[in-house]
Amino acid sequence: MQTTLKINAAWIITVDANNSVLEHHSVIVQEDTIIDILPQHEAHKYSADNTIELNEHALLPGFVNAHTHAAMSLLKGLADDLPLDEWLNEHIWPAESELADEQFVKDGSELALAEMIRGGTTCFNDMYFFIDQMAAVAEQAGIRANIGIPVIDFPTRWAQNLNEYISKGLAVRDRFNNNSLINFSFAPHAPYTVCDESLKIIQPLMDELGLSMHIHAHETRSEVEESIAEHGISPLMRLKNLNLLSPDLITVHMTALTDQEIQILAEHHVHVVHCPESNLKLASGFCPVNQLLNAGVNVALGTDGSASNNDIDMLGEMKTAALLAKGVTEKANALPAHQALRMATINGAKALGLQDKIGSIECGKQADLFAINLNSLETQPIYDVISTLVYSANRSQISDVWVAGKALMKNHKLTTLDEKAILEKTKQWQGKISPFHHKNHKAV
Amino acid sequence: MQTTLKINAAWIITVDANNSVLEHHSVIVQEDTIIDILPQHEAHKYSADNTIELNEHALLPGFVNAHTHAAMSLLKGLADDLPLDEWLNEHIWPAESELADEQFVKDGSELALAEMIRGGTTCFNDMYFFIDQMAAVAEQAGIRANIGIPVIDFPTRWAQNLNEYISKGLAVRDRFNNNSLINFSFAPHAPYTVCDESLKIIQPLMDELGLSMHIHAHETRSEVEESIAEHGISPLMRLKNLNLLSPDLITVHMTALTDQEIQILAEHHVHVVHCPESNLKLASGFCPVNQLLNAGVNVALGTDGSASNNDIDMLGEMKTAALLAKGVTEKANALPAHQALRMATINGAKALGLQDKIGSIECGKQADLFAINLNSLETQPIYDVISTLVYSANRSQISDVWVAGKALMKNHKLTTLDEKAILEKTKQWQGKISPFHHKNHKAV
Repeated sequence: MQTTLKINAAWIITVDANNSVLEHHSVIVQEDTIIDILPQHEAHKYSADNTIELNEHALLPGFVNAHTHAAMSLLKGLADDLPLDEWLNEHIWPAESELADEQFVKDGSELALAEMIRGGTTCFNDMYFFIDQMAAVAEQAGIRANIGIPVIDFPTRWAQNLNEYISKGLAVRDRFNNNSLINFSFAPHAPYTVCDESLKIIQPLMDELGLSMHIHAHETRSEVEESIAEHGISPLMRLKNLNLLSPDLITVHMTALTDQEIQILAEHHVHVVHCPESNLKLASGFCPVNQLLNAGVNVALGTDGSASNNDIDMLGEMKTAALLAKGVTEKANALPAHQALRMATINGAKALGLQDKIGSIECGKQADLFAINLNSLETQPIYDVISTLVYSANRSQISDVWVAGKALMKNHKLTTLDEKAILEKTKQWQGKISPFHHKNHKAV
Repeated sequence: MQTTLKINAAWIITVDANNSVLEHHSVIVQEDTIIDILPQHEAHKYSADNTIELNEHALLPGFVNAHTHAAMSLLKGLADDLPLDEWLNEHIWPAESELADEQFVKDGSELALAEMIRGGTTCFNDMYFFIDQMAAVAEQAGIRANIGIPVIDFPTRWAQNLNEYISKGLAVRDRFNNNSLINFSFAPHAPYTVCDESLKIIQPLMDELGLSMHIHAHETRSEVEESIAEHGISPLMRLKNLNLLSPDLITVHMTALTDQEIQILAEHHVHVVHCPESNLKLASGFCPVNQLLNAGVNVALGTDGSASNNDIDMLGEMKTAALLAKGVTEKANALPAHQALRMATINGAKALGLQDKIGSIECGKQADLFAINLNSLETQPIYDVISTLVYSANRSQISDVWVAGKALMKNHKLTTLDEKAILEKTKQWQGKISPFHHKNHKAV
C-alpha cells in the first residue's frame, strides 16, 4: 500500500492508555493521519513517499503546551528576580502598554512558535491580545493552536470594552474557520480582572458557539484571600456560582486549593493546567498536582509565557513538574516520569477537547509527532526510555517535528519559519524594549 | 607581547566581587594563567599563538561542581520515581555491590567527565571508591578535581576497614602528587555510616596532611531524627563535638537545620553544598539556602551523582536552585540569577580552598573557562546576560572549555576524551547492569 510517510524509530513512546513503549516499530501516516503502527520487520507492506529512519531516536506525540502567552517571548528575561508586584506593575505592564501592538504580537508569536517547534511542541493553548496576528502566525507555522479570545475589564490596545473584546475575537474566529488546526476559546484573564457581569455574558455564548473557557485562577494565595475579602468566596467558588464549572473550563495555576475545592474540580470535570516553573519564578505557591491527580482531575502542563519562565520548553517543564511534586509531597514516588509525560501530551489534549485527535500515537489520530535523538552521552545508558526522556534529555536533542503529517522541522531545521529573520527581528525589538528596562533592575 | 591564548568574547561574565560583566573584551592567557582582561580594541598589544573569536558568546569561569559521584553515571536512570529506601536498598546498593569494580569506576568516571566538560564544568568535588581509577581518568581528561578519600564503616570492594580506606586513599594521593590539577580530601560518607571513633582518627590527619573533609550530612529529616534518637544530638552537633566544624569542612545537602545550627555553620565557616535536583528527586527536604546565605554561610552548588539527578548539568542546576529558592521562601526575589552563578563558580572554589586560583575571571587566576553561544532563538532577546544564562540557556549551547589554559573542548568537540568510545562502553555497561533492574520497577 502506498502511503505518504513512514517513520522507523528505535522507540515509539505512544502515551496510549497503557503507556506502551514499542521498540523498532514503524508509524505509517496517510496524509494527516496515523493509519498503522507495526514492527519494522512487518512494515515492508507499506511503501511511502517519504521514509524517515530514526535509529537512535524516540518518537513521541507532540507536546501540548496547555498555557502560554506566546507574544511575551519578546519580554523574556526583561525583569527577573523581582517581587511579583514590582515585576508586573513596574516592568511587564508598562512595557506591554507601551509596546504590545500588532507588530509586537506578530513578531513575538513567531519567536515563540519557532521555539515551540524546536522543542517538540505541536499544539498550544494561548492567551493574549491581537489574536488576528497570533492566528496568522500559527497558520503560517503550520502548528496546531487553541487561541484564547481575550476578555479583561479594562481597555487595551486591542479592545476598549467587553463588546469589542468579544466581537473582535469572534470575527477572528470566523476568519480562520477553514483552518482545521486552529481553534478558539474564550479567555477571560482571571476572576479578579473580569467581573461577574462580564462572565455572565460569556457563559451562554460558550454553549451557543461550542467554545470552551481558558482562565487564570488561584495563581497565588493572596488572590484567593482578596477574593474572599471582596466576594466572601474563593475565585473557584465564584466560577461555580456562575455555572462555569464543567469539562469546558480550563483553569490555570490553581495553587491554594482546599480539599473541598479539589473535590469540586473533580466532580465538575474541570481541567487544571500546572505551570511549575512560572509558579516557582513568581513565588506563586504550589499547585497540589498529586492531590488533584489522585482526585481524578485532569491536570495538563503549561509553560506560561516567556516573561515568567523563561523558556517555552515542555521537556524541561516535565522535569520540573516531576521533581517539584516529589519535593512538595515529600514522596520520591510522586509524579513519576510517565505521568509527567501524560500531563504534557494526552492530558493537554483532553483539556482542549482534542483527545480523540491528538495527544498519543494511536491509529486514527493526527500525525502530530516529534523525534528526539537519545544517542548522546547525556542520555546514555537507557534503562527506562521515558525516565531518560524526562530526567536526562535536553530539547536540543529534538530533531524532527510533524503536525498533521507535515514536517515543521527536519533534522533540526525549521521548514515553515525563517529562523534567521526571526532572530534579526528579535534583536531589533530588544533595542526598542531595553529603554523600558527599569533602572531598579540592575543588569548584574 | 607574545602570549599563548587570546579570547575575544561578546560578554565576559567575570563573577568578580562586583559581578562585573564586560562587553567586547579580551581575556589574555599566558600558559595556564589569565594575565590581562581588556577591551578588544586595546587587545592588539598582545599577539597570541591562538586567538579565539567568540562574537556571539559569553565567556565564564568554569563551573565548580561541589558534590558528585562521577562513576555513578552508569546507573543514571536505573530506578527512578521510587521511595528513597527502596531506591537505595533494592536498586542502587545491590547494583553497586555487584558491579562497582575498578572498570566500572574507570568507565563511569569517563562518561561523567565527558558530560561535565560538555556542560562547562572545569572542576568537581568527587566522592566514590576506586579513586585510583577516578584520578587517572581526571588526569587523562585534563580536568581539575578534588577527589574524596572514601571512608565508610563497612567493607566494600575498595577496602575492608578504616585503616585500609585511609592507607589506600593516601597512597593514591601520593601517586598523583605531581598533578597540580588533582587534589584530595577525606570523604567519610556520612555521620550515620561513619562512627565517632573513625572520625576521631581522621580529624588529626586533616591538619597533619593539610586535607579538608567532604561529608554528606542532614540529607533528610529522618537522618536528623535518628541521630537525635541514637546520639541525643543532630549529625551537625556530633561533628561539632568532634571538633570538625571549620573552613576545612564541606557538608553536603543540609536540610532540616535549626536556626541555631545555621548560626553555628556561619560561626565556624563551614561550607554547605546545595544539591537541589537530588534533594527534589529523592524527596529529601529543602536546604534553607536563603537563610544560610543571609547568615553568611558559603553555599556552593552540586549536582550529586547521576543516579539521583539524572544529569551532571550545572547550568540546569543553577536554574533549579534559583527557581526552587523562590518557591520555598515565597519570595520572587530570592536567590537571583547572579547569586546562583556565584554558587556554581566562586563559592565552589571557596569550598575547595581554591578561591585564589579559580572561580572567577580575574588576572592572576587559572584560565579555567567556558564559552556559551547565546545567539539562538531560545536565548534572545537578552536584557540581562546573567539572567539569560541562568533561566533560558541550555548546556548544548556551550561550545568551548579550557582548564588551566588548555582546551578540553573546541567548538563542541572534546579534545582529551573519546566520545564515541565512551558511548560504546556505556552501552556495554547497560547490557550488564540491566538485569539488576528490579522487577518492581516497571519500564513504563
